[in-house]
Amino acid sequence: MSLYGDYDPQNIFAQIIRGDAPCFRIYEDDDVLAFLDLFPQSFGHTLVIPKRATARNLLEIEPDTLCTLALAVQKVARVVVDELKPDGVQLMQFNGAPGGQTVFHIHMHIVPRYADQGLGNHAQGKADPAELERLAVRLRQRFDAPA
Amino acid sequence: MSLYGDYDPQNIFAQIIRGDAPCFRIYEDDDVLAFLDLFPQSFGHTLVIPKRATARNLLEIEPDTLCTLALAVQKVARVVVDELKPDGVQLMQFNGAPGGQTVFHIHMHIVPRYADQGLGNHAQGKADPAELERLAVRLRQRFDAPA
Repeated sequence: MSLYGDYDPQNIFAQIIRGDAPCFRIYEDDDVLAFLDLFPQSFGHTLVIPKRATARNLLEIEPDTLCTLALAVQKVARVVVDELKPDGVQLMQFNGAPGGQTVFHIHMHIVPRYADQGLGNHAQGKADPAELERLAVRLRQRFDAPA
Repeated sequence: MSLYGDYDPQNIFAQIIRGDAPCFRIYEDDDVLAFLDLFPQSFGHTLVIPKRATARNLLEIEPDTLCTLALAVQKVARVVVDELKPDGVQLMQFNGAPGGQTVFHIHMHIVPRYADQGLGNHAQGKADPAELERLAVRLRQRFDAPA
């Protein structure tokens, strides 16, 4: 998979944006969607994606959309930190299959880190859906609550 | 090291911004500085930092500065890709020591990935300064060249 190429409108994140596939949503507005990774590398591993972009990666995304995405990542990361109280947070964004990318719609990973725990390998262990749903509810409530 | 705390103006990146410490600079403008990581995880591993921020991490950075940083990361990543022709690129940004952060001035890692090569462990192998200087010159020329 090259770093450059055509956007595939059938990728799973495009399906999620259209409502054709489910996700454990934690935040959504006109521009972005945040949801839990099904194969979390840590508890609270969250993805943030632009909804109106057809960019596969960082090299292709429009500047305005990139800013909007970055601000959304900050907003979501703050909520994840407030709710889950990790000891650290890693942001990761992969471009191209050799760069670790598996879905070719640009997305940012927010990976909480806990002092006593290593990282799981992405895409190697699927989380329990019931646990993801409980976690999504916890995080969603943070966004819905009055500031 | 907590996720929250005071900014230390003696951190090494603050020293670099002030010109009190050297770096292998590849790009600089009024707002950002990009330079090669001294302990690269891959060939071309580059850091991008905001110059006027006193933010330790993603949770603290001002929105305008975050946008400026994100756009600079895109600009630098494109140049790194154009010049070095990696097969992929990873962005990483670490918050808090348990999140992998070692310098507490917010910075983005641009890590080129090559199909046949794994990643080195950060901060475990220091690069040859002569090699870094040659690489910095190559990348700097890309920014200086007329578009």
